[in-house]
Amino acid sequence: MRILFIGDVVGKTGRTAVGDHLPALIREWKLDLVVVNGENAAGGFGITEAIYQEFLDAGADAVTLGNHAWNQKEALVFIERAPRLIRPLNFPRHTPGRGAALIDTKDGRRALVINAMARIFMEPFNDPFRAIERELDACPLRETADAIIVDFHGEATSEKQSMGFFCDGRASLVVGTHTHVPTADHRILSGGTAYMSDAGMTGDYDSVIGMQKGEPLHRFTTGIPSGRFEPATGVATLSGVAVETDDATGLALKIAPVRLGGRLEPAAPSFWT
Amino acid sequence: MRILFIGDVVGKTGRTAVGDHLPALIREWKLDLVVVNGENAAGGFGITEAIYQEFLDAGADAVTLGNHAWNQKEALVFIERAPRLIRPLNFPRHTPGRGAALIDTKDGRRALVINAMARIFMEPFNDPFRAIERELDACPLRETADAIIVDFHGEATSEKQSMGFFCDGRASLVVGTHTHVPTADHRILSGGTAYMSDAGMTGDYDSVIGMQKGEPLHRFTTGIPSGRFEPATGVATLSGVAVETDDATGLALKIAPVRLGGRLEPAAPSFWT
Amino acid sequence: MRILFIGDVVGKTGRTAVGDHLPALIREWKLDLVVVNGENAAGGFGITEAIYQEFLDAGADAVTLGNHAWNQKEALVFIERAPRLIRPLNFPRHTPGRGAALIDTKDGRRALVINAMARIFMEPFNDPFRAIERELDACPLRETADAIIVDFHGEATSEKQSMGFFCDGRASLVVGTHTHVPTADHRILSGGTAYMSDAGMTGDYDSVIGMQKGEPLHRFTTGIPSGRFEPATGVATLSGVAVETDDATGLALKIAPVRLGGRLEPAAPSFWT
Amino acid sequence: MRILFIGDVVGKTGRTAVGDHLPALIREWKLDLVVVNGENAAGGFGITEAIYQEFLDAGADAVTLGNHAWNQKEALVFIERAPRLIRPLNFPRHTPGRGAALIDTKDGRRALVINAMARIFMEPFNDPFRAIERELDACPLRETADAIIVDFHGEATSEKQSMGFFCDGRASLVVGTHTHVPTADHRILSGGTAYMSDAGMTGDYDSVIGMQKGEPLHRFTTGIPSGRFEPATGVATLSGVAVETDDATGLALKIAPVRLGGRLEPAAPSFWT
Ligand SMILES: [Fe+2]
Ligand SMILES: [Fe+2]
Ligand SMILES: [Fe+2]
Ligand SMILES: [Fe+2]
Ligand SMILES: [Fe+2]
Ligand SMILES: [Fe+2]
Ligand SMILES: [Fe+2]
Ligand SMILES: [Fe+2]
Repeated sequence: MRILFIGDVVGKTGRTAVGDHLPALIREWKLDLVVVNGENAAGGFGITEAIYQEFLDAGADAVTLGNHAWNQKEALVFIERAPRLIRPLNFPRHTPGRGAALIDTKDGRRALVINAMARIFMEPFNDPFRAIERELDACPLRETADAIIVDFHGEATSEKQSMGFFCDGRASLVVGTHTHVPTADHRILSGGTAYMSDAGMTGDYDSVIGMQKGEPLHRFTTGIPSGRFEPATGVATLSGVAVETDDATGLALKIAPVRLGGRLEPAAPSFWT
Repeated sequence: MRILFIGDVVGKTGRTAVGDHLPALIREWKLDLVVVNGENAAGGFGITEAIYQEFLDAGADAVTLGNHAWNQKEALVFIERAPRLIRPLNFPRHTPGRGAALIDTKDGRRALVINAMARIFMEPFNDPFRAIERELDACPLRETADAIIVDFHGEATSEKQSMGFFCDGRASLVVGTHTHVPTADHRILSGGTAYMSDAGMTGDYDSVIGMQKGEPLHRFTTGIPSGRFEPATGVATLSGVAVETDDATGLALKIAPVRLGGRLEPAAPSFWT
Repeated sequence: MRILFIGDVVGKTGRTAVGDHLPALIREWKLDLVVVNGENAAGGFGITEAIYQEFLDAGADAVTLGNHAWNQKEALVFIERAPRLIRPLNFPRHTPGRGAALIDTKDGRRALVINAMARIFMEPFNDPFRAIERELDACPLRETADAIIVDFHGEATSEKQSMGFFCDGRASLVVGTHTHVPTADHRILSGGTAYMSDAGMTGDYDSVIGMQKGEPLHRFTTGIPSGRFEPATGVATLSGVAVETDDATGLALKIAPVRLGGRLEPAAPSFWT
Repeated sequence: MRILFIGDVVGKTGRTAVGDHLPALIREWKLDLVVVNGENAAGGFGITEAIYQEFLDAGADAVTLGNHAWNQKEALVFIERAPRLIRPLNFPRHTPGRGAALIDTKDGRRALVINAMARIFMEPFNDPFRAIERELDACPLRETADAIIVDFHGEATSEKQSMGFFCDGRASLVVGTHTHVPTADHRILSGGTAYMSDAGMTGDYDSVIGMQKGEPLHRFTTGIPSGRFEPATGVATLSGVAVETDDATGLALKIAPVRLGGRLEPAAPSFWT
């Protein structure tokens, strides 16, 4: 199976990059499954139903979230009628929506997509290791799911790497999100799980994590807010990771970073072109 | 000037990678300046005088530190007689050693090497922006220093990127350390400063930030320590960043990631080979 | 029912204060239930079986813990044979011991004693609100328990107060621990639950949270550890809270702080003397 | 000298308590110096010029702040013409206003009032120990100031206690603010400095740190914000600390907690009545 995961899409420029690139990538790379992290899609903060639909229209099969899930209040409501929108699994009981979903791939196979919050340097949520283990036990790779993608949304590399090893052999891909910077540690772990600490942001990198530089620099140097954070509006880099799985096992055969457009060094999977 | 910065060297396997690769790289790439972050060189925690000397013998021109600076108590003493050992600039007043030093390069030019602690999700230290600004004012690029390298040791990408923009046009390279994972956002900012959010770790990546996986996984899943953190002992990846500066301005002309050996995808500067 | 809760006992001087005062207090105040937080009883860090027994011998009916629960490794083992030792309820699944226990009081009634970790500024644990709610539902006041005591171990006053209101009408006493400083906000909430943000430390207050002042002051002023934290050895203050409940409802009728000996202003329940 | 320090005044009900009680207390207790922490006076967030003036009119001689100093943007401007408004000393260089001021007392003596931010579990600011030391050196007790009051605004008891001992013998009073809960550890340290870890909040205690309970409880139990934090509006407790200093030394002779009105157990200095 050919999987593309796209990291945190920030604001309009990030959404434009998805709309401009994704349909062609699906065609050219013959993608079976596209997962997009959309927690910053609406002006940097949260997601609306219209934007969720925009991602599906561009070819996304699932949209994941993170700590910004509910910045747009409507998400608490429309998530119930948005079966491909997946919020963190370890949010408190009774949170609207779902933290894991079996998604039909473009050719009719089933992919389990899980989103979870890491906890180091983050808000307190329930144990992501135990929560993910329950999902992996309930829906094992190959038996119930042809692929399993874990979007582990967090800050600390130690926790993300630990989650990679924890899922190794049981998931197709464990990919981190949240730092808005792509890491260069993509690899296939010894048990066959593809891993990358952070998929990076899909947005304008002439910015501070996707936001215009002025306000964050002002706050860091003076300690005083002088306004709101606004998404940067320069050309975005689409940033993410490409994985090819073995149909027999659901595990990863190949992994490569994806970086298209904007200010970062371009990258694409050589194995699909 | 040709500059190589090597990220946090973890334990014996990391030191072995430095010793095995660095002398040849200096020769082949005609390096003028090599800076090594050594905060985890001694069994993962701090640095000893013998290890500092080992880095110099392998060709390092300066060794930087971080939050683990004093894990080996002897560092508080020998740093006073180790002019090429640089601890974070924004440590409290009266801290032994220095946070910035003018280092002679291999061909006799002068490079200002600065080490500073970021503060988000870290221990409290003094304002790194103001501390670095004072150094940049006192020792301006081209006038007093032929190159300026800032090793900004920290967790949060927002703070690291802000420091990059803050120094843009005034430093040759701002490179992050501490997360032990290389980022793929190396680039030259619009003012001419080379930037990379994290240089990555020089150590065994079949590990949790350089440490054997068992103990961190045990702690994440049970919440209970069962032993000490010990460095992983598999083959290390030397991870860092290569920068070529313009002798006329001291600013960056080229930047490329460096990843040699071990489990990460290899990378080297095409412009030097 | 007459209840005495004694806050974090720190080191030998704290234990001496318990041993010296508690037997007489039980007699004079006709106490029915004594709960002692013992997370710092063994040299400031954790608890041993001998110390647990020492508390029972002095008259404690239950011993609670906190983030230092496992500092003495033996606690992970002996807790299984220590039915009156209660560790935080929201520690990960499969943690040895129990987070809530029905304890026989001195006159044969049943008190539910719960210990839980707050999460703000603390390590990540599972949701304490939901965990405690489950216990309160399973073992309701008056129906199953004649009294319910919640030791909520945490840092932030906002979280502790929220827990107080959350349990109001369903518990006899919600008392905070962990800051090692008694608060003066003891009161009975509108639903009948006695509340105090922190019971304070039972230890030598000529100290930094029970530890000798030199090392913490050195760390705060230099940023460099110079040794271990050692418990202060001056005369301890026994610090805690006294509550009288209504036998008909299990709710609180009276609350008063208790501070005996050492350097704090003395306090004792006027209603029992 | 007779000093009254009043802890964080929260919202209108807190201001009403100050206006209702303070004029009479000044008269009855013959107060020489009144310091009020006003960081939450304007709807829970920051302070306006009108409110600052209201505090002076009620008899305050100085108003201190904290992490909420600039929540009302006008404070950045009017602080320059408000000589009795003192913001944290260790805010970044070039912050408007002052962090320490020599204040004329009611009978014409001089009191140095210092406000500083603690750093544990708080935003990163410069070293408060070094900043305060500089002030104490520049304006020593008895030589230049007849009394010295340090309002140390912070979360962690360890840092607050350390600051108490650090200033012991050099200040008349070190009092903590920020947690909005009064502590019961008021005492005179061995060097003669009065100390109390937190002065408590002047506001409605039927609340979560002065805010209406619904929103914080909702956030703690669901993880989802559903609205803004609004100050509670029930009757406030005026909470603070009373200190009498020795005119010969400037050090403390007596200390007592002050709690008037509202839901906490009342307290007043017996030595003035
Ligand atoms: Fe994000
Ligand atoms: Fe995020
Ligand atoms: Fe490191
Ligand atoms: Fe580090
Ligand atoms: Fe404790
Ligand atoms: Fe504790
Ligand atoms: Fe406050
Ligand atoms: Fe505050």
